[in-house]
Amino acid sequence: MAAKKVCIIGSGNWGSAIAKIVGANAEKLSKFDTTVNMWVFEEMVNGRKLTEIINNDHENVKYLPGHKLPPNVVAVPDLVQSVTGADILIFVIPHQFVKRLCDTIKGHIKPDAVGMSLIKGVDEGPEGLKLISEVIREKLGITMTVLMGANLANEVAEGKFCETTIGSKSKEIGATLKDLMQTTNFRVTVVEEADVVEICGALKNIVAVGAGFCDGLGYGDNTKAAVIRLGLMEMIAFARVFCTSGTVSPTTFLESCGVADLITTCYGGRNRKIGEAFAKTGKTIEELEKEMLNGQKLQGPPTASEVHNILKVKNMVDKFPLFNAVHQICFEGHPVKEFVSCLQNHPEHM
Amino acid sequence: MAAKKVCIIGSGNWGSAIAKIVGANAEKLSKFDTTVNMWVFEEMVNGRKLTEIINNDHENVKYLPGHKLPPNVVAVPDLVQSVTGADILIFVIPHQFVKRLCDTIKGHIKPDAVGMSLIKGVDEGPEGLKLISEVIREKLGITMTVLMGANLANEVAEGKFCETTIGSKSKEIGATLKDLMQTTNFRVTVVEEADVVEICGALKNIVAVGAGFCDGLGYGDNTKAAVIRLGLMEMIAFARVFCTSGTVSPTTFLESCGVADLITTCYGGRNRKIGEAFAKTGKTIEELEKEMLNGQKLQGPPTASEVHNILKVKNMVDKFPLFNAVHQICFEGHPVKEFVSCLQNHPEHM
Repeated sequence: MAAKKVCIIGSGNWGSAIAKIVGANAEKLSKFDTTVNMWVFEEMVNGRKLTEIINNDHENVKYLPGHKLPPNVVAVPDLVQSVTGADILIFVIPHQFVKRLCDTIKGHIKPDAVGMSLIKGVDEGPEGLKLISEVIREKLGITMTVLMGANLANEVAEGKFCETTIGSKSKEIGATLKDLMQTTNFRVTVVEEADVVEICGALKNIVAVGAGFCDGLGYGDNTKAAVIRLGLMEMIAFARVFCTSGTVSPTTFLESCGVADLITTCYGGRNRKIGEAFAKTGKTIEELEKEMLNGQKLQGPPTASEVHNILKVKNMVDKFPLFNAVHQICFEGHPVKEFVSCLQNHPEHM
Repeated sequence: MAAKKVCIIGSGNWGSAIAKIVGANAEKLSKFDTTVNMWVFEEMVNGRKLTEIINNDHENVKYLPGHKLPPNVVAVPDLVQSVTGADILIFVIPHQFVKRLCDTIKGHIKPDAVGMSLIKGVDEGPEGLKLISEVIREKLGITMTVLMGANLANEVAEGKFCETTIGSKSKEIGATLKDLMQTTNFRVTVVEEADVVEICGALKNIVAVGAGFCDGLGYGDNTKAAVIRLGLMEMIAFARVFCTSGTVSPTTFLESCGVADLITTCYGGRNRKIGEAFAKTGKTIEELEKEMLNGQKLQGPPTASEVHNILKVKNMVDKFPLFNAVHQICFEGHPVKEFVSCLQNHPEHM
């Protein structure tokens, strides 16, 4: 079997952290081609091209400063050139660029290439919510997998122990990707319910906004634990509505992509932080994004709205009081003080 | 049907918080006798008997100051008198007093009384670990249930929203107990796997010690999330070894007694705190208990040892690297720095 060629599409903070792992494994394992392409959006940093800096100094000084990248990771500024001949395409770019990027590489990739999305977030589909992997699959017609987990990029780059989850419907592809991704301190579990793995990554942000409300309103540990748990139950219930391609097992939610990522997002994470500030200051989400995130968009509130749209069509809003409360508080002027009382008659307690 | 008479055996911080709830519900619901006895270990507080203070001022000034107890909760200093005629016995005393207490009330309780244990901790059995509800059941021969969850007593007393889990093999008894315990802000789920509910409350403390090590060693959010998740997986695996009376479903671990209580214990809680201090200072658990807990005993480390004994007999130690590492680090002189490396070859990742 020919060695598989890997291309990392993206070179931000998370893409560069992943490049450390992928580069090291590709160098070590004969089943992968040693050279790993990394598509880098070209920009000038201190008067030098970023690709030149990466290829000469082996460091992404802009997005992952202080970490050496393996020298077999080659920065390529031309997108089409970077993906040509690749057997494994790792997508790790901001979700708003996905469609345009797919349009650019379409027709230039191997038809039997396998994609793995590390992209957080969801797209707006005709029914209110669409998985990013689904967007890529439709655009490119390739087999898609995902990798998600409690993985803050800087901690992964520092080699601190953590876990992650690969979702792959094919066991064989899952095993190959595990070989590519797993290191001593980056431990991989492969599950078949890829759509569940991906939806967890989107839904957890809604719960984190709620956990932030809870912090901002001065509730204690009990209430926050209840919010996180009820959020998890709504994530499971929503996955059962949304992921119709197979069964949705509660055990997938016990993986890193589920409960572990949910915990870190509800204790750290910017959705929690903005949720807290929202409850404390009375400012709008938009104002807080400007003040606290330099205008970057938060994912939890829009995801709550997209989920709300789906649930409305299906006449199931009442079964998801937490998701619904986050939507109504962020966008329909409901008082944030009502957040917890929305949970008092949760279907879980009936 | 005659109104059921309730006795709360114990009047500490948690017992008094529960008395607020039980008293209010017994007053409101005709299926319960309005008067709720609460056995109070008599002591003098500012020159007055504690039972007299409670019965006159309706406040447990020693263990739950600042909260009024419902006037239908009657403090009774005589243990046998307090339980006489009770249909529902709520056990909420420190676990080291359970056996002696049972010996005292044996022969004085209704044979068809139902017990509900709110007691945290486990007893040492011949096989290394024994549930407190099992100890009571053996001593008294009554039907036992449990109530466990992410329930810090003071927050419950303040009426802050939270959830709890009742474990009852009988659905009918479970429904009655839910009526007795549930309020607008104290939400109850009933599950049949009572032994799983109870073992969660013991095992979480081992995981929290590990989470504390992790904090003390300076690992970040990813690693802590991985420790919590791997701890949860070992809790499930251990329950499957230990709870042989029925099936062990992963969904029980998604209840308040499982994931929610685990989260609060691993972020707050004294097992975490001592674990952190242990890793930072190099002092022994015993020294830290003296310094930080006024000599009170921590539950995580001894539970780790009891679990270790069981696993050794069953030749299954290797399948529980986290539980085992906590035991070895606390009691066998293994360096705490090795804690995380013990997790690198976890069966979950194989």
